[in-house]
Amino acid sequence: MIKSKLTILELTAGILAGDISILSRAITLIESKKEEDTILASNLITNILSFSGKSIRLGITGAPGVGKSTFIDRFGAFLISKGKKVAVLAIDPTSKISGGSILGDKTRMEKLLGQKNAFIRPSPAGIELGGVAQTTLESILLCEAAGFDFILIETVGVGQSEITVKEITDFFIFLTIAGRGDELQGIKRGIMEMVDLVVINKSDQIEKNVLKNSINNLNFALHLFPKKESNIQVSVLPCSALNEKGFDDIFNTILNYQIIALKSNYFSENRKLQNVSWMNRILEKKILNYFNSNAIYKTQILKAEKEILENKNSPIIAAKEIFEIVIKKMVG
Amino acid sequence: MIKSKLTILELTAGILAGDISILSRAITLIESKKEEDTILASNLITNILSFSGKSIRLGITGAPGVGKSTFIDRFGAFLISKGKKVAVLAIDPTSKISGGSILGDKTRMEKLLGQKNAFIRPSPAGIELGGVAQTTLESILLCEAAGFDFILIETVGVGQSEITVKEITDFFIFLTIAGRGDELQGIKRGIMEMVDLVVINKSDQIEKNVLKNSINNLNFALHLFPKKESNIQVSVLPCSALNEKGFDDIFNTILNYQIIALKSNYFSENRKLQNVSWMNRILEKKILNYFNSNAIYKTQILKAEKEILENKNSPIIAAKEIFEIVIKKMVG
Repeated sequence: MIKSKLTILELTAGILAGDISILSRAITLIESKKEEDTILASNLITNILSFSGKSIRLGITGAPGVGKSTFIDRFGAFLISKGKKVAVLAIDPTSKISGGSILGDKTRMEKLLGQKNAFIRPSPAGIELGGVAQTTLESILLCEAAGFDFILIETVGVGQSEITVKEITDFFIFLTIAGRGDELQGIKRGIMEMVDLVVINKSDQIEKNVLKNSINNLNFALHLFPKKESNIQVSVLPCSALNEKGFDDIFNTILNYQIIALKSNYFSENRKLQNVSWMNRILEKKILNYFNSNAIYKTQILKAEKEILENKNSPIIAAKEIFEIVIKKMVG
Repeated sequence: MIKSKLTILELTAGILAGDISILSRAITLIESKKEEDTILASNLITNILSFSGKSIRLGITGAPGVGKSTFIDRFGAFLISKGKKVAVLAIDPTSKISGGSILGDKTRMEKLLGQKNAFIRPSPAGIELGGVAQTTLESILLCEAAGFDFILIETVGVGQSEITVKEITDFFIFLTIAGRGDELQGIKRGIMEMVDLVVINKSDQIEKNVLKNSINNLNFALHLFPKKESNIQVSVLPCSALNEKGFDDIFNTILNYQIIALKSNYFSENRKLQNVSWMNRILEKKILNYFNSNAIYKTQILKAEKEILENKNSPIIAAKEIFEIVIKKMVG
């Protein structure tokens, strides 16, 4: 059954009333590639913009197997028990837009699912911005307008996605496990310099001295990096997501961060700069996509690549040639 | 005294004859921003292209104070003593184009300077490609055509410059010193995953057990990263550049790398891919610069940034709006 389209007014009112099914349909609208939907989506965002911004946005990353989904499920349920409203935007590399229904992480989000104050939404992984859809930030804004005060964003854990999620969140959590050097994979993946909190999951499954050693390793690794812009010390905290242990300390660390960062103005300044850089990023992508989808441009690129591979042209000359041809034909 | 301009034929012939003063003038030509010079430069590169490519291109990085300049000077002189011709392209963040005369590192390159088989050229640091000028790759091609078989490229050691130098070199050396955790700053700066060789300089100034510990630390750090695409194990070698010790091992490691990489075809495949990505990088920069220097575009960006900072617009809507206005006015 295809639902009839809601008007912008209905969508706006529904979101502000905290109606989850309307929130879901609104996100579907902003994710739509249809020209007509794009205009509606812009209007919707403009309507809700002044009602957004009041959450704390948590980025959560970690290698496969460290228990990210369980952590989000149980910690999310913990937050709800503290009276919070929790939205989870799981960036799903395999998901197609599913019309607003929740499919992806259904089985792994058993504690959160169906809770009145929880909203779970798999977000399609755009290939463009490091695995994060251009629209993820707007999904956050919609969730905030709907009254969610904790937004949890899970990274896909590949390549650039951490950097991009970092750019749209306030607080970045790196989830890892102890022993076997696992705790140091954050260095390998370039994550250590951007985390605000390190959580060692499954800490009740390992020996005390192994855990202590892991915490030491992580603290050593964190000291390799310069002081955070927020000026707030990064902690390393143990936890067992499955057994819901260690959540109080994590919760307090996040709240404490928020208080200090709000007071120092870092919180709002950081968001403003994130927004400006997000705009520039999207705009640059749009421009380059515009050229990349142009037939003349594509032909010239292929020709130049062939010449370069055959050592018949230098990269800089080829770039100059293509630029002149394309700018003249497309713009001139 | 202003020298009269050389013709392309004179430049080409001079370079192929290994004339250093003509090589220097040719590099000045390709670095020139003048329209007329740009065309001459293209013709020159086309002429010498088939005579280039025969060197091994070494990228050399390391924090200030580890002795990069001394290493390049003494190791360069060592290479000359082995019958090699050595070109040094030092990327100088402060240099203006100096008409081909060598000024920058004169005092610190005392062993190399004035040697018949040495060529030292400070390369202006372009702000565009991570501190590396767009023309650096073409300077390499000119040096190769002039018969230089070792090209040493020093990074400025800030931000993106390592990545960019990595992209135009065959073999990447990370220079560090032992003790006080210095050897691990390569992790901090994201260099560990791209090095082909780690050299611990000033190794004769420290205790044996400290050196041993440093080598262990570095080997541990190197093991955090996946296997190199080249399939060649990264070594950690001690050296004293000032006292010219340890050069034989470094030299043999580089030669060994070259032999294996040539045999496996990695050497040439890597260069081809570097060239293609270099072209795309320059072209994308050109396109974005073209927009960034447009008055309409700039006005729109400023307007949008103001709106975003005042929370009156969302980044994605602003990007859409600017894109449509600009593409319509500039292209449509």
